[in-house]
Amino acid sequence: MAKQILLNAFDMNCAMHSAHGLWKHPENERYRYKELQYWVDLAKLLERGKFEALFLADVLGFYDIYRGSRDAALRDGIQAPVNDPSLIIPTMAYATEHLSFAVTVPTTYEPPYAHARRMSTLDHLTNGRIGWNIVTSFLPSAALNFGLDGVVKHDDRYEVADEYMEVVYKLWEASWEDDAVIRDAERGIYTDPAKVRPIDHVGKYYRVPGPHLSEPSPQRTPVLYQAGTSKRGREFAAKHAECVFIDAHNYESMRFYVDDIRAKAAAYGRRPEDVKVFMAANAIVGRTRAEAEEKLREYTALRSYDGPQALYGGFSGIDLAAYDRSDYLEYYASDAGQASVARYTTMSEKRMNVGEIMEENARIGGRSPLLFGSAEEVADQMQGWMENTGIDGFNLAHLMTPGTLKDMIELVVPILQERGLYKTEYAKGTMREKLFGERSRLPDRHPGAAFRGSRLGAGER
Amino acid sequence: MAKQILLNAFDMNCAMHSAHGLWKHPENERYRYKELQYWVDLAKLLERGKFEALFLADVLGFYDIYRGSRDAALRDGIQAPVNDPSLIIPTMAYATEHLSFAVTVPTTYEPPYAHARRMSTLDHLTNGRIGWNIVTSFLPSAALNFGLDGVVKHDDRYEVADEYMEVVYKLWEASWEDDAVIRDAERGIYTDPAKVRPIDHVGKYYRVPGPHLSEPSPQRTPVLYQAGTSKRGREFAAKHAECVFIDAHNYESMRFYVDDIRAKAAAYGRRPEDVKVFMAANAIVGRTRAEAEEKLREYTALRSYDGPQALYGGFSGIDLAAYDRSDYLEYYASDAGQASVARYTTMSEKRMNVGEIMEENARIGGRSPLLFGSAEEVADQMQGWMENTGIDGFNLAHLMTPGTLKDMIELVVPILQERGLYKTEYAKGTMREKLFGERSRLPDRHPGAAFRGSRLGAGER
Repeated sequence: MAKQILLNAFDMNCAMHSAHGLWKHPENERYRYKELQYWVDLAKLLERGKFEALFLADVLGFYDIYRGSRDAALRDGIQAPVNDPSLIIPTMAYATEHLSFAVTVPTTYEPPYAHARRMSTLDHLTNGRIGWNIVTSFLPSAALNFGLDGVVKHDDRYEVADEYMEVVYKLWEASWEDDAVIRDAERGIYTDPAKVRPIDHVGKYYRVPGPHLSEPSPQRTPVLYQAGTSKRGREFAAKHAECVFIDAHNYESMRFYVDDIRAKAAAYGRRPEDVKVFMAANAIVGRTRAEAEEKLREYTALRSYDGPQALYGGFSGIDLAAYDRSDYLEYYASDAGQASVARYTTMSEKRMNVGEIMEENARIGGRSPLLFGSAEEVADQMQGWMENTGIDGFNLAHLMTPGTLKDMIELVVPILQERGLYKTEYAKGTMREKLFGERSRLPDRHPGAAFRGSRLGAGER
Repeated sequence: MAKQILLNAFDMNCAMHSAHGLWKHPENERYRYKELQYWVDLAKLLERGKFEALFLADVLGFYDIYRGSRDAALRDGIQAPVNDPSLIIPTMAYATEHLSFAVTVPTTYEPPYAHARRMSTLDHLTNGRIGWNIVTSFLPSAALNFGLDGVVKHDDRYEVADEYMEVVYKLWEASWEDDAVIRDAERGIYTDPAKVRPIDHVGKYYRVPGPHLSEPSPQRTPVLYQAGTSKRGREFAAKHAECVFIDAHNYESMRFYVDDIRAKAAAYGRRPEDVKVFMAANAIVGRTRAEAEEKLREYTALRSYDGPQALYGGFSGIDLAAYDRSDYLEYYASDAGQASVARYTTMSEKRMNVGEIMEENARIGGRSPLLFGSAEEVADQMQGWMENTGIDGFNLAHLMTPGTLKDMIELVVPILQERGLYKTEYAKGTMREKLFGERSRLPDRHPGAAFRGSRLGAGER
């Protein structure tokens, strides 16, 4: 059987995630993000299309680097206002049977003890259909609101995050044995205390004695997602992530990331197939190419210009308004011929001046690749990415809600199914079982599994 | 019209909240707390009985003072394992129309910026049916897991909590104007940036520049609950709380609390009726008194002994196992002839030795008053508490799930309705409108309302 394409919807509990300007479209129901019914409808649609998961991004600050102000972001609804993503998940899980959910939570601001319980609670309530997108957070405006003087330095953030992971692994994997809760009415034992252990974590950044507050949930550790493309970020992902979410703009750079993350994972004793790679994309699909072109024209008429520059400012740290349009930004090459800043500098790998970058930012679909054309053409493009890069699937943002995903599900999915590239039935079980077909728990070769059993103890290992 | 009785259900997202030992009863469905369906069924039952709210307690630690160990608590399922309470609320709100929810969240461990967004999100998702039970937290085992060396001293905790409240009031009441989000497609303005203000809070314990991440929700500030009975706790409640939840054991002590909290509220410019008082109670109701007695016998046969002492240890800080059963505990009288320790020392106001206290702890229904008898008798008892103490209603724990609340709803509520003491229809609107009949927002005379408008600024006021 050909390798199956996995689809996630990429979204956020906010007014406007990535479809800048398209909130102005009269058919866009996006503004209903504050209503549970909006999310239930979306979840049911995705389950109809046999999507793996709804992937929820998050920020805890404002995009205020562009022109040194949050005004452009607010005016264009750029990821502000933004509500908590975890709280919408249980109701969507209640309304569906198979759809999974991946939620973004930063390690920087949430205490690990409370976070571990939240994820365990979600894993219980969703029957094991929960993933966690681990971010170390990037907006200075967020850091300030948590009493930090500024964003923690990039590499230090990952050091803190590594210890954070150690704490939550201990809580999830090691603190409660599977048979701790026995509910033995005759002997009067609800939980056998001998099977609940403190974790006694004392590290450089955290001291958490435990035990964990929650009893073991279907997956214990949620499916771990990560989205870092920097060198340190990829190192972190190779160690921890079971799914990575990557933004790249051509086959070569995507293939580089895919091969690199899998090779690095092997260095941690993991198998290449232990890491699924999802690529970010937008899609405009028509019944015909002409219909797709008509949609693109319609959307382009509504696009906004300043909002996308505000978003770029948040991701890159660069205020494009501080340059002349004819300026060229400095290009920091990284280990891979890729670049951290350059990633945000040009999609086409040709050198672009500031004005050209701004134009590119304001494109419909933003900076992610745009799958475009008739349903057949889009299916071809998806197949092309799969065959030429080694990815496992797509994290699909949506331009129009619910139109974009509906088009994908009604027009493209049947074609992919005909080609034998897309499941016609969900697999049974938890999110991890559906993705990896093994079992609900972390595989033994995952570094998090090393904390199982009695191997607990103090920080440095 | 006679004063109407308000009913809350008092519960917790855990295996066993307060019905120690009754998890052993074969008809108790309590162990299903990990399933959303359990909570949806409960919410629908409560809405059928026209309850005001489901009140959810929480702890972030273990009851490990008794015998210096968490074993007794674990063995008897005493509030452990325990899951996050906020995550079950939206689905219950989705399944109901009128029922409100009050959730316990400590000010000690949750950063105010993230907490404010969680509450705003809940207020949006429930259409304004959310309350927040403000606790300053009491378990040393919780403090340790958040990197604190021990529990913050009692009075300091309230000082921190007061500043915490200032931060969240600023975020909820002052940061976004009602007409900030305009979604003006023609002018391309989603949010008018001039109507979103930073809060620039710089205080002794918190520095939070803001702005708030969420747009204004139906109630902005959730309905504020508080449960402190200490002198400092009552001062805090008188300033902030719109509902208080009080545990007292006879008319005199309940009336003292009710009068005291209302008098203190007046000192903050509030009206006595701005504070609703709910009293903790358990209930065993039969079709006849004989039936209630039969239930009590049945439950008593299942009661546990050590678990309740563990719970007492957590609340009081006293390890009863460290004393002889014939010992008398020291009695610290407080300002009111009440006592902080004594509150946990005796329910009957007579001096009891340790053995007698332990017996009392292990009673069915624990340390809260037990409404008991035929439906008529229980209705009489409720009416008696209402008429003799000035309370507004009851926070009813349940011994058997769903039996206890079902009995209350099917047997007692119709009698109260006949007597004109209980609504036959819900009032319209948000939680605050239902309780106070005014409007969804904090009344202008509430101290939190003082932060509205442009009166923002630095900490000390």
